[in-house]
Amino acid sequence: MQNQKRVVIDSVSPSVNCGEFYIKRIVNEIVNVDAHILGDGHDIIAATVLYKHEKDKKWSESRMRLVINNEWQASFVVQKQGFYSYKVEAWVDYALNWQHGIERKIDDNQHVKSELLEGIEYLKNIKKNSKKSDASYLDNLINIFSDEGRYNEAIKEATSKKLYTFFYNNPERILSNESKEYQVYVDRKKARFSTWYEFFPRSASQQKGIHGTFKDCERLLPRVSKMGFDTLYLPPIHPIGEVNRKGKNNTTEAKEGDVGSTWGIGSKHGGHKDIHPELGTLDDFKNLIQKAKEQNIEIAMDYALQAAPDHPWVKEHPKWFKWRPDGTVQYAENPPKKYQDILPIYWESDDYKNLWKECLDILMYWIDCGINVFRVDNPHTKPFFFWNWIITHVKAKHPDVIFLAEAFTAPKVMQQLAKQGYTQSYTYFTWRNNKHELIEYVEELTKSELSEYMQPNFWPNTPDINPYHLQGANESKHIQRYVLAATLSSSIGLYGPVYEYMLSDALIGREEYLNSEKFQFTYYDWTIENKLIAVISKVNHIRHQNEALQQTNNIKFCHIENDNLMAFYKWNDSKTNELLIIISLDAFNTQQGVVQLPLQDLGVSPGQRIGVQDLVTSNSYNWYQEWNFIELHPTLPFHIFKINK
Amino acid sequence: MQNQKRVVIDSVSPSVNCGEFYIKRIVNEIVNVDAHILGDGHDIIAATVLYKHEKDKKWSESRMRLVINNEWQASFVVQKQGFYSYKVEAWVDYALNWQHGIERKIDDNQHVKSELLEGIEYLKNIKKNSKKSDASYLDNLINIFSDEGRYNEAIKEATSKKLYTFFYNNPERILSNESKEYQVYVDRKKARFSTWYEFFPRSASQQKGIHGTFKDCERLLPRVSKMGFDTLYLPPIHPIGEVNRKGKNNTTEAKEGDVGSTWGIGSKHGGHKDIHPELGTLDDFKNLIQKAKEQNIEIAMDYALQAAPDHPWVKEHPKWFKWRPDGTVQYAENPPKKYQDILPIYWESDDYKNLWKECLDILMYWIDCGINVFRVDNPHTKPFFFWNWIITHVKAKHPDVIFLAEAFTAPKVMQQLAKQGYTQSYTYFTWRNNKHELIEYVEELTKSELSEYMQPNFWPNTPDINPYHLQGANESKHIQRYVLAATLSSSIGLYGPVYEYMLSDALIGREEYLNSEKFQFTYYDWTIENKLIAVISKVNHIRHQNEALQQTNNIKFCHIENDNLMAFYKWNDSKTNELLIIISLDAFNTQQGVVQLPLQDLGVSPGQRIGVQDLVTSNSYNWYQEWNFIELHPTLPFHIFKINK
Repeated sequence: MQNQKRVVIDSVSPSVNCGEFYIKRIVNEIVNVDAHILGDGHDIIAATVLYKHEKDKKWSESRMRLVINNEWQASFVVQKQGFYSYKVEAWVDYALNWQHGIERKIDDNQHVKSELLEGIEYLKNIKKNSKKSDASYLDNLINIFSDEGRYNEAIKEATSKKLYTFFYNNPERILSNESKEYQVYVDRKKARFSTWYEFFPRSASQQKGIHGTFKDCERLLPRVSKMGFDTLYLPPIHPIGEVNRKGKNNTTEAKEGDVGSTWGIGSKHGGHKDIHPELGTLDDFKNLIQKAKEQNIEIAMDYALQAAPDHPWVKEHPKWFKWRPDGTVQYAENPPKKYQDILPIYWESDDYKNLWKECLDILMYWIDCGINVFRVDNPHTKPFFFWNWIITHVKAKHPDVIFLAEAFTAPKVMQQLAKQGYTQSYTYFTWRNNKHELIEYVEELTKSELSEYMQPNFWPNTPDINPYHLQGANESKHIQRYVLAATLSSSIGLYGPVYEYMLSDALIGREEYLNSEKFQFTYYDWTIENKLIAVISKVNHIRHQNEALQQTNNIKFCHIENDNLMAFYKWNDSKTNELLIIISLDAFNTQQGVVQLPLQDLGVSPGQRIGVQDLVTSNSYNWYQEWNFIELHPTLPFHIFKINK
Repeated sequence: MQNQKRVVIDSVSPSVNCGEFYIKRIVNEIVNVDAHILGDGHDIIAATVLYKHEKDKKWSESRMRLVINNEWQASFVVQKQGFYSYKVEAWVDYALNWQHGIERKIDDNQHVKSELLEGIEYLKNIKKNSKKSDASYLDNLINIFSDEGRYNEAIKEATSKKLYTFFYNNPERILSNESKEYQVYVDRKKARFSTWYEFFPRSASQQKGIHGTFKDCERLLPRVSKMGFDTLYLPPIHPIGEVNRKGKNNTTEAKEGDVGSTWGIGSKHGGHKDIHPELGTLDDFKNLIQKAKEQNIEIAMDYALQAAPDHPWVKEHPKWFKWRPDGTVQYAENPPKKYQDILPIYWESDDYKNLWKECLDILMYWIDCGINVFRVDNPHTKPFFFWNWIITHVKAKHPDVIFLAEAFTAPKVMQQLAKQGYTQSYTYFTWRNNKHELIEYVEELTKSELSEYMQPNFWPNTPDINPYHLQGANESKHIQRYVLAATLSSSIGLYGPVYEYMLSDALIGREEYLNSEKFQFTYYDWTIENKLIAVISKVNHIRHQNEALQQTNNIKFCHIENDNLMAFYKWNDSKTNELLIIISLDAFNTQQGVVQLPLQDLGVSPGQRIGVQDLVTSNSYNWYQEWNFIELHPTLPFHIFKINK
């Protein structure tokens, strides 16, 4: 009831909802902890951050320093995957306080005999808990402080830097106070830095009119690898429902030979743990995973929790679906629209525990097959707490697993999915097009609390979104959108080959691809090379070479007096890699502007030489001023400058 | 472990540190609760705020409405003093969801026979928990929905507003979710709206050279009342230490006849529960309290936890002080400065429980004598958790008691004292002088989280602070500073009579009064009247007449294109009282400017007449435009306009 402690710890950050949710980091990243620490009166305060990995028994420590206005700070590095806890401890340091007082009294020519006697008490107390190697130092001090004949020696020792350091390193922590515990989840690096490519395996065939297979996909791996992608995401590869199958362009009645939507999962050939027969066998798939791995590509699988009417679950687990009073099963609908080829899961089912368990089993099954990355379809239409439960369970066993939320939904819903445990999230980048809205959105992602728990993944297009600005767009526009994604966000993705072949025909007035691969397969000549592919490959290569592009939050927009030009500064934590990126948003005209360098961040003064080298063209320039001229032409509408001071 | 709930409740506000501390309101104020409420998918969500007074057994309810982007809102009124709890409950409303779906299907000309059968299930479930009076309505609906021959009637009833309202008012709350509980402490009105006057009783005598008494104070009560003050704060009235007593102007050696600092509490005449003999007896003091009450004035007492060396505690409770190794007691010091007339409390004492208990007893003793307002001296030099404990204990028994923190200290320390329970706090207003810094400070107090827990009290001066801008200042400046305080903050205070008599001689280069009453008494002719007194009285009267000035957070600054003029709009909750205040900050010259009216807040269009009446001069004007001309002369450098539309 009565709490005699004298120090208050308030506003510990980083934290999400005051510690209700964990923050996220990757291995070897820094956690900068801030806290408001308040003592009554004028006594000297000391504080420390205590942190430990979930498997550690003992807390490690990082001493905090006062920055300004009762704001304290310390950092620690998270070196292992999994959960770390951290908390702040603070106390009045009576010994340092005593030293501070005696120094000022000596400066004021006061006689400090009584103060030296007080000092002995602090030395004796500290001696009780200190190392043996310190005992002789302390005993010696006690002798000197006690001996009036050695007064001059005593005041020299009492005010010594050595004693200060000793007190600082051996605090008594009397009446110390602790904050609550906060948590940080540490992922492998790919959680933050990943470059995704998506294509439909059924469109992978070399022959026109033939359904692609996993073997065809294998043949395309070198192309994916050469373009610099490290994650190959395949839409669902499970058996496609035959009942109420969708036709081309989302028509409700499939015609003979229509292959249906890959998201209409389940048929007589099986469900979520099975492979669509036309793609090949489980062994073919495992082989693809293995071959990809050899080329540093991870296969990302689609996790779509819904069922075609002929999914085996419908008969085996009728309670997982909603049955109407007329005895039919409830299909998906958003009245008056009906989606008869898909049955939604009935999450209110009283058999939900078995349902959740089966959902978890699906993930575990594919993880055992070698999958470590899941792109989750429409997570916002399944319960938030289900995601929290399933992600927690998977990551406890398999911390390498990454979950990307296809959360194209309301902002707070998207954020909540990240809070509940999603590793990455799709974002609104797909629709952010002009300079003002791009800057505003990136600032929101990187400068607000979001930066602590939501890791964005920027996609210029997806099979569901053929954005208006790309429909019929030229090569320059495609370069711009890809470079924007690739430099603004450390995780990005592309749906190909429609993107790099600029195949952007759309359903009229809609952001849907015409003849979408969601409902049919398409023949491509995958061997065609073009400039866009060359630029994408080069930019991806630059991302892999430059740590500054491997995290998203380290960004500062630079003034450039032209609304068609964007400029921003990126850096790595050690500042050994610093980039200045300039992108034109005009796909048709040359744009000129004068960009302001962030001199203070660069640590240079005006007049000092700043060398910049364009990482695409290798051209280099020497700048000497804060403001510098830039001209970009639509043929190569960007600079990624490496800064050499 | 497995949580099947489908609704997430996030970011409930108002809250301080996510609910760690309570927010503050006064009786009959509104609490506007906001929350982010998220469901998966597209189902219809419903939400409610549950609230109850600490003595209530049942929760009351206020249904929330969706404002925008998953942000929900509801309000409730706090009608009684003490703690209220509030929390948010939210659920998917399956019945409303069903009605929404059937409406859209009917609009789409679908046959809804199966949907009507589903509807019967909802009706039957709701019937189980509903009032008897509703049973016949529900039975009738069930009959109609079951009867295919009454299809047209059925779809009319199914989509009726009546059924909507019935569903809305009788939610099943399946799988409903609840936020944590938050607390609001409700004070009496004076916590928010108070007008303080401070003087030294020992300066109250009618005769020069004679120590004032409580009886002299009684004589001054009509003057205080006439000036419109409702709280009379007296510096400590306890016996003043005789050992190491301070002399005039804070000299270290008192001369014969020096009366010492009123804050050097305790002597052979007693301690914190005793009365300084020269002021009178306990009965005299009780009489003063009673006489004041009759004139609607409450006496505020000083609570200063420190002791003169001859305070009875020093002998009776030596453990409450720190003893040095040489056997002397530790006096207050801030090395190299020494304050030998005051001993600080030793809060680390192992006898601290008895110490805290005695500190509480002091308060209880004076509360029993009729005191309900305490101004606490230097609270930031005593432990924060002590204040939390003692304030909680006092208010549990005596909810009327108000604590004003004399927390002239760092911002976060000031804020923490408010979080730990202080009713009001002194502020930096005393030093905020120009337009920019005044607006910035008031915005910080009223538009940040501070507005929920820290109730500011604006003092133009105190015995400790004779601010530079008032030293030698003219009447106009004194009017301006008082009117700024009185209109920017609903709680204000004045140290007189030096303020109204403009006696601002200072120690050279310091913000200390020359011949400060802290160390001596002064003779005043309290009968003198002047214009400043008339203005203060009038302004205080206006504050009592206008609810818009009785709360601080309802403020909006208006554009006025002159840095010597400030303009702001104030209103009461019901908007039956709206004021426009304009104050000149120039004490020497006439200032002119054009002020922009907050038309949208006023609910008027340009061209519509707006009548404004100056509440001091009674002059009235009709304005028709958004921008209006203002001229203020130093003789009356402000307008308090009442707006009549």
